[in-house]
Amino acid sequence: MSFPQGFTAQVARCGLKSNGDPELAVVRSQVPCQAAGVFTTNRVAAAPVRYCQQLLRRASDMVSAVVINSKNANAVTGPQGERDCARLAALVDPGDVLTMSTGVIGQPMPMAVYEKGLNELIPAEPELLARAMMTTDTYPKVVVREFQGTRWLGVAKGAGMIHPDMATLLCLVITDAAIPAAELQQALNEANQVSFQCITVDGDTSTNDSLLVLANGAAACTPVEWPSILRQVLMDLARMVAFDGEGARHRVTLHVSGLSRDDEARQVGRVVLTSPLVKTAIAGKDANWGRILAAAGRSGVVFEPTEAALWWNGLKLLDGGAPTNPGSEAEARAVEGQEVELRLQLGQGLGKATVWSCDLTHDYVSINGDYRT
Amino acid sequence: MSFPQGFTAQVARCGLKSNGDPELAVVRSQVPCQAAGVFTTNRVAAAPVRYCQQLLRRASDMVSAVVINSKNANAVTGPQGERDCARLAALVDPGDVLTMSTGVIGQPMPMAVYEKGLNELIPAEPELLARAMMTTDTYPKVVVREFQGTRWLGVAKGAGMIHPDMATLLCLVITDAAIPAAELQQALNEANQVSFQCITVDGDTSTNDSLLVLANGAAACTPVEWPSILRQVLMDLARMVAFDGEGARHRVTLHVSGLSRDDEARQVGRVVLTSPLVKTAIAGKDANWGRILAAAGRSGVVFEPTEAALWWNGLKLLDGGAPTNPGSEAEARAVEGQEVELRLQLGQGLGKATVWSCDLTHDYVSINGDYRT
Repeated sequence: MSFPQGFTAQVARCGLKSNGDPELAVVRSQVPCQAAGVFTTNRVAAAPVRYCQQLLRRASDMVSAVVINSKNANAVTGPQGERDCARLAALVDPGDVLTMSTGVIGQPMPMAVYEKGLNELIPAEPELLARAMMTTDTYPKVVVREFQGTRWLGVAKGAGMIHPDMATLLCLVITDAAIPAAELQQALNEANQVSFQCITVDGDTSTNDSLLVLANGAAACTPVEWPSILRQVLMDLARMVAFDGEGARHRVTLHVSGLSRDDEARQVGRVVLTSPLVKTAIAGKDANWGRILAAAGRSGVVFEPTEAALWWNGLKLLDGGAPTNPGSEAEARAVEGQEVELRLQLGQGLGKATVWSCDLTHDYVSINGDYRT
Repeated sequence: MSFPQGFTAQVARCGLKSNGDPELAVVRSQVPCQAAGVFTTNRVAAAPVRYCQQLLRRASDMVSAVVINSKNANAVTGPQGERDCARLAALVDPGDVLTMSTGVIGQPMPMAVYEKGLNELIPAEPELLARAMMTTDTYPKVVVREFQGTRWLGVAKGAGMIHPDMATLLCLVITDAAIPAAELQQALNEANQVSFQCITVDGDTSTNDSLLVLANGAAACTPVEWPSILRQVLMDLARMVAFDGEGARHRVTLHVSGLSRDDEARQVGRVVLTSPLVKTAIAGKDANWGRILAAAGRSGVVFEPTEAALWWNGLKLLDGGAPTNPGSEAEARAVEGQEVELRLQLGQGLGKATVWSCDLTHDYVSINGDYRT
């Protein structure tokens, strides 16, 4: 795997991760980039989020690099956090540098460690770049697409605090296609709706969620279909993030249909796959579909329970709002394996959505009970 | 403990619970009662919820009894579920009988079992009545108050699917005070706001939530302060339900202050104590207060992060939006014990609320991974 033309990445091992993965990454473009971003809606936004938002608001500016650190979120760190963020950006490049941070909230940035790291950067392939972003992810998330002479590379990290509005924790997409920032922003907003807005792990919206796209134009062409490429890259990364949620043992895909509008279907899907009761049932290989209906019922979306039907890995468990009682043997077969595909039909409307998540396991509790130690 | 005048309770052991607790209870009043109720807002309301709502809507009717069954929620059970509910009520008394069910969703009611139980009822004290409602509760929840010649008895069950709007799963309060139904309903609505609307276990709103109050007037008096007695009974029961959430190892009380309005403070409190990341941190005895701020930040309530302060069992961890860094020894002392008292100040406003919950432990995952087996 190689980078889009004109982009390079470097990482540094700062010694904060016990597995030897790097904690610092810098992505540079030889020519200034058009850039777009989507960020957490959390009122307690981290310093790097506010830094990026300010920078992207100045439409005249082009971006030369992105600096990413893991192990410290630089969130709820007061004025010192803002100074640390600006200093990290300035040390990377005198031009405009975007920043992303992920890790523990509410602890001062170990700036001496990161500054030392900036002096010890080594070239990195995409996978090592993705590793530098990781916290509790179990594998690096990288997607590459080539299309009509352009190349697209996306890296993401997720694992916990994953939920729409928005949910990536961190995601960076770089391309050598030539795209003006305004168009990039609009396509990003749309692609985000059907990708990161459709995954949930635990319903917690992070302070640091940042989804950035940089286009440096080095390929000197703009394929007409580029928004669809961007959408594919984001959907692939979003699924990876959802399926690798903290402690995940099952990969869950939920198709909701029959409502009036797509956003209603998305809302039902999010509530169902955020429900701890649904997620623990899946962890326990129990086709406890009643909890899915109960979660749909509290989603705020209007539907007639008597029109509801539900399939669990193809087995129909509910029809016209009443149980089909297929028998415990058929149910046991339906819950075999690590893939869970749920279909929930809530009427005859054309509104539909697909949402992805994972189960809620003992490991989620363990990982988050001692995250800081 | 004895019942308010004119009330009796009976239970039956139907053999569905492995610990020998009863699964069926009937509470009767010698004279017809004024009654009020608050119910789940879930669109997928169980048959008994819809049955009670219809009955209470007919203001002329007085209630003679309540029949309660556990082990089956009679929810998402189609037209058969409605017939089963009406039949259970009719078998208890030809007059108006309220119904409450709790247990697995989406399975047909084992009517032969419950009907046999109705023929084998035995007299029960309040504690055994509370036991007949229980599913995964670890202890029966009973509150008794005597006040100016009136007696108030409240029983509740909770444990899972606990969240505002509303959250009791099941709660029944009976009193021999003389109170008209309309006044009873108004006081119940108000008391509910500061009790069951202020607890959360897992954010899942049940299909069966029902909070019923019956007043038979047998004491022939109406203390002026009765709404405050009702509020105390409900607050005590709500706390018990929150602290006995499925798998709970810590009792969590969160005071939110400094916002413009009480309902804003309540909203922040609910979101914080529903956050899986906050709840797993408490389970792991980690004073990871950054997650509390992150949850408050996504609550939808407007506040200035730079004005936030937070105390964990009296230890100040955040001041003016910046960490106080009291040191790991002080933090270790603050997280000792099973009681967690959090104070979150988000400004200088007068709006405040207290919210109760428990932690999220391995046991919650285990209990809900094999609830139906």
